[in-house]
Amino acid sequence: MNAEIQTRTEKDLLGLREVPNQFYFGIQTLRAIENFNLSSNKINQYPNLIKSLAMVKHACAEANHTLGKLSDLKFNAIKYSCDQLIQGFYHEQFPIDLIQGGAGTSTNMNANEVIANIALEHLGHKKGEYNFLHPNNDVNMSQSTNDVYPTAIRLGLLFSLDDLNTPFENLIASLRRKGDEFAHILKMGRTQLQDAVPMTLGQEFNAFASTLEKDLIKIREIAPQTLNYMNLGGTAIGTGINTEQKYTQLAIDALATISQKDIKSAPDLIEATSDMGDFVLLSGLLKRTATKLSKIANDLRLLSSGPRTGINEINLEPRQPGSSIMPGKVNPVIPEAMNLVCFQIIANDLAVTLSAEAGQLQLNAMEPLIAFKLFESIELLGNALVMFQTKCIDTVTANEQHCKALVDNSIGIVTALNPYLGYETTTRIAKTANESGLSVLSLIKSENLLSDDQLSEILAVDNMVQPKAEMV
Amino acid sequence: MNAEIQTRTEKDLLGLREVPNQFYFGIQTLRAIENFNLSSNKINQYPNLIKSLAMVKHACAEANHTLGKLSDLKFNAIKYSCDQLIQGFYHEQFPIDLIQGGAGTSTNMNANEVIANIALEHLGHKKGEYNFLHPNNDVNMSQSTNDVYPTAIRLGLLFSLDDLNTPFENLIASLRRKGDEFAHILKMGRTQLQDAVPMTLGQEFNAFASTLEKDLIKIREIAPQTLNYMNLGGTAIGTGINTEQKYTQLAIDALATISQKDIKSAPDLIEATSDMGDFVLLSGLLKRTATKLSKIANDLRLLSSGPRTGINEINLEPRQPGSSIMPGKVNPVIPEAMNLVCFQIIANDLAVTLSAEAGQLQLNAMEPLIAFKLFESIELLGNALVMFQTKCIDTVTANEQHCKALVDNSIGIVTALNPYLGYETTTRIAKTANESGLSVLSLIKSENLLSDDQLSEILAVDNMVQPKAEMV
Amino acid sequence: MNAEIQTRTEKDLLGLREVPNQFYFGIQTLRAIENFNLSSNKINQYPNLIKSLAMVKHACAEANHTLGKLSDLKFNAIKYSCDQLIQGFYHEQFPIDLIQGGAGTSTNMNANEVIANIALEHLGHKKGEYNFLHPNNDVNMSQSTNDVYPTAIRLGLLFSLDDLNTPFENLIASLRRKGDEFAHILKMGRTQLQDAVPMTLGQEFNAFASTLEKDLIKIREIAPQTLNYMNLGGTAIGTGINTEQKYTQLAIDALATISQKDIKSAPDLIEATSDMGDFVLLSGLLKRTATKLSKIANDLRLLSSGPRTGINEINLEPRQPGSSIMPGKVNPVIPEAMNLVCFQIIANDLAVTLSAEAGQLQLNAMEPLIAFKLFESIELLGNALVMFQTKCIDTVTANEQHCKALVDNSIGIVTALNPYLGYETTTRIAKTANESGLSVLSLIKSENLLSDDQLSEILAVDNMVQPKAEMV
Amino acid sequence: MNAEIQTRTEKDLLGLREVPNQFYFGIQTLRAIENFNLSSNKINQYPNLIKSLAMVKHACAEANHTLGKLSDLKFNAIKYSCDQLIQGFYHEQFPIDLIQGGAGTSTNMNANEVIANIALEHLGHKKGEYNFLHPNNDVNMSQSTNDVYPTAIRLGLLFSLDDLNTPFENLIASLRRKGDEFAHILKMGRTQLQDAVPMTLGQEFNAFASTLEKDLIKIREIAPQTLNYMNLGGTAIGTGINTEQKYTQLAIDALATISQKDIKSAPDLIEATSDMGDFVLLSGLLKRTATKLSKIANDLRLLSSGPRTGINEINLEPRQPGSSIMPGKVNPVIPEAMNLVCFQIIANDLAVTLSAEAGQLQLNAMEPLIAFKLFESIELLGNALVMFQTKCIDTVTANEQHCKALVDNSIGIVTALNPYLGYETTTRIAKTANESGLSVLSLIKSENLLSDDQLSEILAVDNMVQPKAEMV
Repeated sequence: MNAEIQTRTEKDLLGLREVPNQFYFGIQTLRAIENFNLSSNKINQYPNLIKSLAMVKHACAEANHTLGKLSDLKFNAIKYSCDQLIQGFYHEQFPIDLIQGGAGTSTNMNANEVIANIALEHLGHKKGEYNFLHPNNDVNMSQSTNDVYPTAIRLGLLFSLDDLNTPFENLIASLRRKGDEFAHILKMGRTQLQDAVPMTLGQEFNAFASTLEKDLIKIREIAPQTLNYMNLGGTAIGTGINTEQKYTQLAIDALATISQKDIKSAPDLIEATSDMGDFVLLSGLLKRTATKLSKIANDLRLLSSGPRTGINEINLEPRQPGSSIMPGKVNPVIPEAMNLVCFQIIANDLAVTLSAEAGQLQLNAMEPLIAFKLFESIELLGNALVMFQTKCIDTVTANEQHCKALVDNSIGIVTALNPYLGYETTTRIAKTANESGLSVLSLIKSENLLSDDQLSEILAVDNMVQPKAEMV
Repeated sequence: MNAEIQTRTEKDLLGLREVPNQFYFGIQTLRAIENFNLSSNKINQYPNLIKSLAMVKHACAEANHTLGKLSDLKFNAIKYSCDQLIQGFYHEQFPIDLIQGGAGTSTNMNANEVIANIALEHLGHKKGEYNFLHPNNDVNMSQSTNDVYPTAIRLGLLFSLDDLNTPFENLIASLRRKGDEFAHILKMGRTQLQDAVPMTLGQEFNAFASTLEKDLIKIREIAPQTLNYMNLGGTAIGTGINTEQKYTQLAIDALATISQKDIKSAPDLIEATSDMGDFVLLSGLLKRTATKLSKIANDLRLLSSGPRTGINEINLEPRQPGSSIMPGKVNPVIPEAMNLVCFQIIANDLAVTLSAEAGQLQLNAMEPLIAFKLFESIELLGNALVMFQTKCIDTVTANEQHCKALVDNSIGIVTALNPYLGYETTTRIAKTANESGLSVLSLIKSENLLSDDQLSEILAVDNMVQPKAEMV
Repeated sequence: MNAEIQTRTEKDLLGLREVPNQFYFGIQTLRAIENFNLSSNKINQYPNLIKSLAMVKHACAEANHTLGKLSDLKFNAIKYSCDQLIQGFYHEQFPIDLIQGGAGTSTNMNANEVIANIALEHLGHKKGEYNFLHPNNDVNMSQSTNDVYPTAIRLGLLFSLDDLNTPFENLIASLRRKGDEFAHILKMGRTQLQDAVPMTLGQEFNAFASTLEKDLIKIREIAPQTLNYMNLGGTAIGTGINTEQKYTQLAIDALATISQKDIKSAPDLIEATSDMGDFVLLSGLLKRTATKLSKIANDLRLLSSGPRTGINEINLEPRQPGSSIMPGKVNPVIPEAMNLVCFQIIANDLAVTLSAEAGQLQLNAMEPLIAFKLFESIELLGNALVMFQTKCIDTVTANEQHCKALVDNSIGIVTALNPYLGYETTTRIAKTANESGLSVLSLIKSENLLSDDQLSEILAVDNMVQPKAEMV
Repeated sequence: MNAEIQTRTEKDLLGLREVPNQFYFGIQTLRAIENFNLSSNKINQYPNLIKSLAMVKHACAEANHTLGKLSDLKFNAIKYSCDQLIQGFYHEQFPIDLIQGGAGTSTNMNANEVIANIALEHLGHKKGEYNFLHPNNDVNMSQSTNDVYPTAIRLGLLFSLDDLNTPFENLIASLRRKGDEFAHILKMGRTQLQDAVPMTLGQEFNAFASTLEKDLIKIREIAPQTLNYMNLGGTAIGTGINTEQKYTQLAIDALATISQKDIKSAPDLIEATSDMGDFVLLSGLLKRTATKLSKIANDLRLLSSGPRTGINEINLEPRQPGSSIMPGKVNPVIPEAMNLVCFQIIANDLAVTLSAEAGQLQLNAMEPLIAFKLFESIELLGNALVMFQTKCIDTVTANEQHCKALVDNSIGIVTALNPYLGYETTTRIAKTANESGLSVLSLIKSENLLSDDQLSEILAVDNMVQPKAEMV
């Protein structure tokens, strides 16, 4: 560093250290920055994490204040600092790598230091004058990284999941609109990539909507049922060492008020301190959605394959030229990007799982990677949902005539005749059609197996794409 | 095959084929056996799958009978057959590889053929006389593999999950008993493998119980919420082709009655036909439990490490000699086996995920692997829970004196002094203790930082392993 | 057990135990059978593992004999026993679960006990008369599970990889034959599922052959380079405790002779005792092949999609009726089963990875799962290769006219005009063709952009599916 | 955008678009930026990728120039541009998301546009005056994304692997130094976390060095054997459409010269265009290293556990205070961070695998994620290796006396007596020692089983940590 930079001297367990005056973070953050120079991803990438850390600090300070352990002056200063962070200021003061050792201690100390220094300036002191307000003794009072950090992650994830709602709902609504728009378009259904029986394109898009809707509902149901239970008050290992009995409930209540979330105290704080099961479950829910979105993206790519040598039932709006060598080629770049996001989320689930399994005894030291990957998955998912809806689904169009022609030419409609002619006769018809290239209809007629009236009744669109009122 | 084996001639789309008379399965099962000669795992490995297939067949037959499409004679014969399978007979007639192409068609046809032939014999006919009762036209009436197979898998999984209850509860109860038994044993808590603050061994075992209890509750809550919704009645692709409108509800109601499960019809049958999301979620739940059990197994191995050069706080009952070369060595073989089971379940989750993502359009052709891996995971988990409880947890003993000595000798108790002396003073004490090898207590006393009364109050067991009524 | 079963009394560290006389295994195997009742997969599922264990035991006995530590009598008896196992006899005497704790000790002791008892009977003694020949003192002399077991796994894997050669080569040869057979069939190439530029179907199948050939070569190169290095002689932790200096090389040389493999001693026996890296690498190689085979299976399913509403360029031979409800439907069941096998192998790689990472200090206790999963992956792969070749590739046929028609009708041929007309003009032509439905050729002609001679030269098949001798 | 920003009009297949003049990239890059707003990771995060793209462009231009298809003027201008990028300038002009659809087309067009505009300015023209030098017709001449992009990724990975060499070698050297430094320190070896037999701490650190050395060698051997084979010249699908026969070899030779790498042409260009197998293999190699490093990190955390209630054989240099609540606590933050990096690399391998498997027909559209994850894994690994060496291994110290005391007190030394007293006697001794708390030595002596001379000979350090010259 430049010799002319103004610094202040800070001290910790390891000794003295000059900290440039411009930084609100202090010596422990500085050490962590130097220790972990690994990825390009820093804490400040996820504002919800910083915001929730600040809310937790505020809530704890409030509990300590109520218990008479923190003066009005200090409490108000800490509260001011936390508000600044909650409003989105000073986030650049959180530059530690998201891949960090120490089970989140660096992140917690980063918050303690920044909050202390903002508070000190607010009180008219200089940064680093910790005798007036101390990162550990005051900001971190009655707390340990081991309860503050998991609590903040849970709360931050709840906020991030809130941010998913609108993109998720908008995509579902867009798919439903297409379901309506395409309700009248008859097309072949396919199983195992082989021609099956008819359906409508509207049914297909509605099924996409339904399957995502189920996920959104499940995430909304399950996530709070698990994430809401906080280990705050457990301090170092869940025994609540260095807290008073009333403290935990006071802190939890304060946090519920501040965050406007239905925060509760975990029933077994020792269990809650080391357990990562709720994160594994949340990651599993996100992975479930990823497998569905990837499948939908695959389907769209299949259905829009062509334009001349593929299935070509639908058209995706061109988003960019598709090739540097093949003129006029347009590719399904948006569904492809969706696939990549889904693969990333599935891979993140593995990182979460590996980390969860690696916890030992009273703490899981791998929690920073769990937090990183979950925030990343949710953010990627949110961005991808917006992209998918606005740049792909909203503008899908159908090739109605082509869809119809494929149905008319298919052998699959023979299935509708099965209840009338039996499995063996219809199998023979299908086989003959396949080998001869003739249509099913002409074969039925040539054999006089069914009357024209029967046939038109049986093969009426409405009778093929839904159960019959009654079998003829 | 031996030339003298009596055979019957059967026929399908591909032509004629001799089927040995002793087999209740027919031509399509025979083809599948020959096509898929891959693993050592056959359908009959999972009785719950066969049982649930039979229940579905019974339910559909009942619906068809009610609608007047199946005669009393045929219905009763099919019902008889299904009962036989439900009671566990004829399961050896399901010898197809669990790794099979065809999206479950082979499994469904195996059931159709076996049920038809049991019924035929029951009616006094010979196997293969399908003109009296036909595997497709009668047993499979109003059905497709694509609705029957997923429905049977869901139902079978519900049964298998039921089988998990007792082992799960027993393990939790065993851990709780140890929690009580060890409630008075003070020991050091450890975070990041470093000495932290005291706790009781009872708290540690209770936390194991708590974390598994949470999972059992979640599995019981979430699994039925998702698995109960069946796509029965959707037939080929969910449009319900070849069914009457009343059929689906009749079949669902019948299945609910037969299975004694709260079976419901999926709201969007097209979605439900191809979607594997519920299986991904279930697999995620099992994986969550696997990460926890693996962590617990790791903890037990750590805590019992030694006997002389490790932590040695607890003893695991010797189950077998530990070494072919090192006399007297005993290893934690039961927790190790638990680790392996957990890794297998985690890997199975990946197989499920890969399969779910690979679904295309109106069906997921990879469903047989999903079914296989889920049944396998549940069975492994059940067996491992029994093993873990009966061969390990039930007989864990504690080295109480050693636990106590480790606490007394630790530096970690300095944390309890933090609220009284401040972070900086206690840090200095801890550092000096570490460097000098002296005890924390002697250093405090030599500096007269706290009176003996204060010290004994602060360091009282009850004050260290739980929040204080009030801070002194 | 039945009270009338004849038993013998055996003894180990844990005490006395009655062992039924019919068993060649003894007390330690019995305990392991009871301890690990987890999966349906037993050691005897993999004869190559038992065979290689026997070879290792033979080799060690030979080294001990040469060093004068084992009498002629004992050595010859042990050698006889090992030969029996190598020839495939007595494998049913290895009934322990493949999912076992104890880092393979149970498997090693199973071998020690069975070999001792076969030898005892051969010498005219009764089973269990270990004073004449002892499982530990004699059969396991100078050995530990920790060197014997990894060595046997490596050797067994080398044998299993040998078994892969023929299926692998046969599949490649079959693909090459199809490459030749389809060399003249022009078809559209597709990138991102969109029409790209022409190629031949022969090129496509040759590429399948090439990509698998690369894998076979890599497996043959890399596997022995790593698996050949054995930690035999390292005994308990690689220090070679309880061996003489000459022993290791003698044992290695003997094993090389017995196994006819280029066995070498690992350079750092301590490293080699705990390291699972070679297994992770082998698993990665198998996974690489799995991703390729799955991709090929996917391609075959795409190319054969239809018959009327898909791509339908090739036909897969029908292997079984495809549907219980849709008459005449035939599905690509063989490629689907290949997909499932590939997903299983990919999931197995995760189990191997998890196990490898979980090793601690001087040994990896999770090695039994690594062994299980690798043997399983290789066996599944071998079976799937045979299935894929004989039941699918060998009988693929092409729809030549349809392939040709798709090319003629495509817009993608415009790419060939790019060097002559420039990216912008050809882009305009392609766009007009797409929007109007007109053919590229007619548009070029109507604008007089190229002469007929130029066009036929440029669009000649040979000029489109390979580089030109020189640009016109 | 601000209305006063100067723009130029560019055109592509989708129409006209204003591009701010300050950007060297053009319309297609702009569309891609807008289409893919997903992650915080942009192309310019990996300079080796941009550098290798520029080398490929340079090489292709050279081949075209040699073939007389590109004028001196254009060639020199393109060459100038590429040199600028190779030297690290203009990298900020590559701002597209690394998670992008389009199979890399956006990345390739980004390069084409930036190179064209740098060249245009160099020639005295304005950006966007593509009539003088065109991104597609000139910069991308004879190329397709589908050959250029994979080639650039392979080359970039080779460069990134080069960057790994020094960190890898330095870590190995550091471990070897510790191996020497600790060569005389006797300690207990542990298997399955149970006391086994003695070894030296030097042997343990040397084993860490050996296992990483094996990986470095394998990466150096295998990576070039696979990555060196480029599909350059294959253009759109590997058929080499729009190239002359001589072109491929010219381009490959030029690229070998420019890159100073032993670049070769892939033997089957069609295969090489879509195959991702080499990337899967490379990822598998990186994963292998990750499992080892994670295991080493776990071992260091175990060995340094304590200070008072763990194993405490070694000390890791304190890098930062370990707790916000527990004064004096220091945690193994560097090995923990290493674990996280390893988990990330293992998860990245899954993303690579998923992407590789998802390729279809003539191209793998998921290649951008494969590239992203491989570059990320290598960079993370490199950073973590540096961190691990400089912040952890270099400064590890040993607690020699404690190590010695643990050995002396252990039961495990009984193993050394096994060859002299037999498995049963030593088992009895071990069992008695364990139950009584007495030492093995005192028990042997009290039973007069061996003379003092024999004992001291057998238990001499040199006789326990390596094979004996000859057994007594």
